[in-house]
Amino acid sequence: MTTLNSDLEQAFRSHLKKISSYEQAISLLNWDSRTGAPKKGMDERADVSGTMATELFKIKTSDETAKYLHAVLGHQGTDVSATSKQAAAELKKEYDRMTKIPEDEFQEYSILTAKSENVWEEAKEADDFAMFAPYLEKIVDFSRRFAEHWGYESHPYNALLEDYEPGMTVEKLDAIFAKVREGLIPLVEGVTSSDKKPETDFLFSTFPKDKQRAFSLDVLKQMTYDFEAGRLDETVHPFAIGLNPNDVRVTTKYDESDFRTAVFGTIHEGGHALYEQNIGEELAGTILSDGASMGIHESQSLFWENFVGRHPKFWEKNYELLQTYAPDQFTGVSLHDFYRAINEAKPSLIRIEADELTYCLHIILRYEMEKQLIEGSLKVKDLPRVWNEKMQEYLGVIPPSNAKGVLQDVHWAFGAFGYFPSYALGYIYAAQLKAAMDKDLPAFDELVEKGDLKPIREWMTKNIHQYGRSRTPIELIKEATGEDINPDYLLQYLSEKYKDLYQFS
Amino acid sequence: MTTLNSDLEQAFRSHLKKISSYEQAISLLNWDSRTGAPKKGMDERADVSGTMATELFKIKTSDETAKYLHAVLGHQGTDVSATSKQAAAELKKEYDRMTKIPEDEFQEYSILTAKSENVWEEAKEADDFAMFAPYLEKIVDFSRRFAEHWGYESHPYNALLEDYEPGMTVEKLDAIFAKVREGLIPLVEGVTSSDKKPETDFLFSTFPKDKQRAFSLDVLKQMTYDFEAGRLDETVHPFAIGLNPNDVRVTTKYDESDFRTAVFGTIHEGGHALYEQNIGEELAGTILSDGASMGIHESQSLFWENFVGRHPKFWEKNYELLQTYAPDQFTGVSLHDFYRAINEAKPSLIRIEADELTYCLHIILRYEMEKQLIEGSLKVKDLPRVWNEKMQEYLGVIPPSNAKGVLQDVHWAFGAFGYFPSYALGYIYAAQLKAAMDKDLPAFDELVEKGDLKPIREWMTKNIHQYGRSRTPIELIKEATGEDINPDYLLQYLSEKYKDLYQFS
Repeated sequence: MTTLNSDLEQAFRSHLKKISSYEQAISLLNWDSRTGAPKKGMDERADVSGTMATELFKIKTSDETAKYLHAVLGHQGTDVSATSKQAAAELKKEYDRMTKIPEDEFQEYSILTAKSENVWEEAKEADDFAMFAPYLEKIVDFSRRFAEHWGYESHPYNALLEDYEPGMTVEKLDAIFAKVREGLIPLVEGVTSSDKKPETDFLFSTFPKDKQRAFSLDVLKQMTYDFEAGRLDETVHPFAIGLNPNDVRVTTKYDESDFRTAVFGTIHEGGHALYEQNIGEELAGTILSDGASMGIHESQSLFWENFVGRHPKFWEKNYELLQTYAPDQFTGVSLHDFYRAINEAKPSLIRIEADELTYCLHIILRYEMEKQLIEGSLKVKDLPRVWNEKMQEYLGVIPPSNAKGVLQDVHWAFGAFGYFPSYALGYIYAAQLKAAMDKDLPAFDELVEKGDLKPIREWMTKNIHQYGRSRTPIELIKEATGEDINPDYLLQYLSEKYKDLYQFS
Repeated sequence: MTTLNSDLEQAFRSHLKKISSYEQAISLLNWDSRTGAPKKGMDERADVSGTMATELFKIKTSDETAKYLHAVLGHQGTDVSATSKQAAAELKKEYDRMTKIPEDEFQEYSILTAKSENVWEEAKEADDFAMFAPYLEKIVDFSRRFAEHWGYESHPYNALLEDYEPGMTVEKLDAIFAKVREGLIPLVEGVTSSDKKPETDFLFSTFPKDKQRAFSLDVLKQMTYDFEAGRLDETVHPFAIGLNPNDVRVTTKYDESDFRTAVFGTIHEGGHALYEQNIGEELAGTILSDGASMGIHESQSLFWENFVGRHPKFWEKNYELLQTYAPDQFTGVSLHDFYRAINEAKPSLIRIEADELTYCLHIILRYEMEKQLIEGSLKVKDLPRVWNEKMQEYLGVIPPSNAKGVLQDVHWAFGAFGYFPSYALGYIYAAQLKAAMDKDLPAFDELVEKGDLKPIREWMTKNIHQYGRSRTPIELIKEATGEDINPDYLLQYLSEKYKDLYQFS
């Protein structure tokens, strides 16, 4: 534990603890609503969550917070710790963002996004983009105005990015994503035109839910997920949630006709959970006890899902175990055929169902449209057309409906502009971290084959987890890999893997 | 829904909603801690719950609350509803109680009781009353001082009773409990000296946990517990908890070598839950959406546990169903033998394991000691001796240790003086309500035999549940049964039942 040097520091830490308590209560309400809370209680639950969020907002933007920020950040001398100063700096960022939006504007926006989520749902159901368009137009307007309130250099989208991936800019993303896009398109074409496609029929036999759960628990244990500081529950839309490093919960979804949903979903959320379980203790109770960014968080889930969970050696270890839970399903299916099946790649319409190879293209096309919406060079009404054109250009598929195209995701309906790039950045970070890890752990393949995943997790803890939000994404990646963000590792990995799997060159 | 007549009323209702939101968040934290929250997160959880409780305390005792109470209670005219006025009156009681204790005294007391719970646990473990005595002495002193702060008529214990059973007094309790004690002692002697004791060996076969759960769910369904507004979970110390009428959760405990724990525990907690699920909608979000008192709450759980769950007709309906879950356990055991076994009565040491017949004596002996501690006529150091003397006098058993005697319960360690009487009052109310119900529902036995428990639950909803905390216990009982609290119904019920079961006169 950190020694708290002064009365000021102690008082500030108490204030941070209060903020953390509200955040933990909100997280628990959220977890409960999304796992097993009684259906009929959901209306009142929304009120309770709303009240708690409002109270937290009030505390974060209070005069008391301002007073602490002023005192801690202005403090000269050594009797306030570096951690407290950093926590103050992070809280200051939130304070500034929250207080720069005029109250009536924020309220109007909150009402709008609450409504627009329902409208989006109906519009998707009815495949009616025009129904959603007026709401989306207003949300885009608000986002543009918020960017002006917050301020930015060179491009308004940069102001929005700051919420999800601090330090990331349109200039950097344009360069990175262009490279990824150009690298991926020929690979996707290679896979599409290959005549060496895997057999996948055997994936879809009935795999009982309780057996899937048992296997999921086995895999989480191998990953060194700490069950004394967590638990596994069922949900419709899987997520991991950390109340504090000693209480980090994983949820998963069981599809009895496709065991991959639960298995890879659990590994993915388990990756998020390992991050939160291993944030340094000295950050506990401060705003720094959190992930560094959306992209860094996603790098952890994707690392475990793809670089461990889809690794051939992982299944040398686990294929037999899987078969003990579904003895008949894999009769006559060799390990190699199994491995090829679970690594199948093919262009598809829905982002969340996309495979490892095509996923980034789904993200990039959204990024391009988001950026243009925010800069004003694309109108909401043109979205469906542009969406479909890009889908054809990047993935070679055309959505048969807007429900399966531009309306598929809820993010825009709650105003999350600037969020999507993190998903692709996570892939890029994950591959780059894997390449750096290989230098320190040349026996990576052996460790995975033995199921000895602890050294792998420890490498991540040493280089990423422990720092929580006390370092920026840029610092973390630079320190861990020796260079700035570099998409070459991802492209190289995917190129080797898929040329081999689909035998093209 | 109530129409809110005025700006004042609307603002006051919002304030009550805020209070309710905190209470619901605290309830969820509590439910989670006691069901499946990760072990390692418990320290931080205590901080979070503590913060939320402190914040709620601040709101309830705030100038804002005072302002609303003054405005609503002082309001003349019809544009503030009766419900709001009543809610204000109830909140005023809490406000007065909370603000009458000087802040430093309350803080000292909070620290003391937090510590003393741990000391009590160690003392019980070590069977060392002297270790706990100094803490208990201080807690008694505080309780006496609180009684002075709060004010009372005739006896300081009356001030403490007000927290749990408003309107109840030492004068009434002395008369009621003397009657119960004198009525029960000969019945207990009759049972003890009877040579017609039931066989009970077959109760203790292994009954798998998942089968107990399945049966518990069946029984809750029969009771008309609404699973869309609730759920059943496992815990160490069973409880029911209502966040709001649309989210009321039951917990139970499974002992594989004694299925009665889960079955009767679930029915008991289910009784509490039915109460909370059926509180009138117009009270939702106000302080009145709660049980009327501890005793009234307990009357509901005990009514379902004993007057329904231990009724011979209940098992005519359910014995076969029970056997489908444990086919071998009851081979050759007739329904009558089964019924006698689950209604076994014998004096025992531990209150929470006591049967229907002897339970009230456990409560009465505590009440007598509590009252004397508070009035100053009994010293803490004499408790073990007096405890054992009374156990021998009332139940004919002498605790072999203080751990199994005076140290058995945690209540005193957290200062809950005035709480115990509610447990016995619950029995008395339950029997009295049952007698009144028989007049309206002469077909009670038939309904139970058919498993048609809805009319029974509806009678309770009509007479008790719907009113929540908008009526006092005294009003509820008077209105529902036509008379004041009367222990004769309980004595008559127990006398008939146990003379028949144990064949004495």
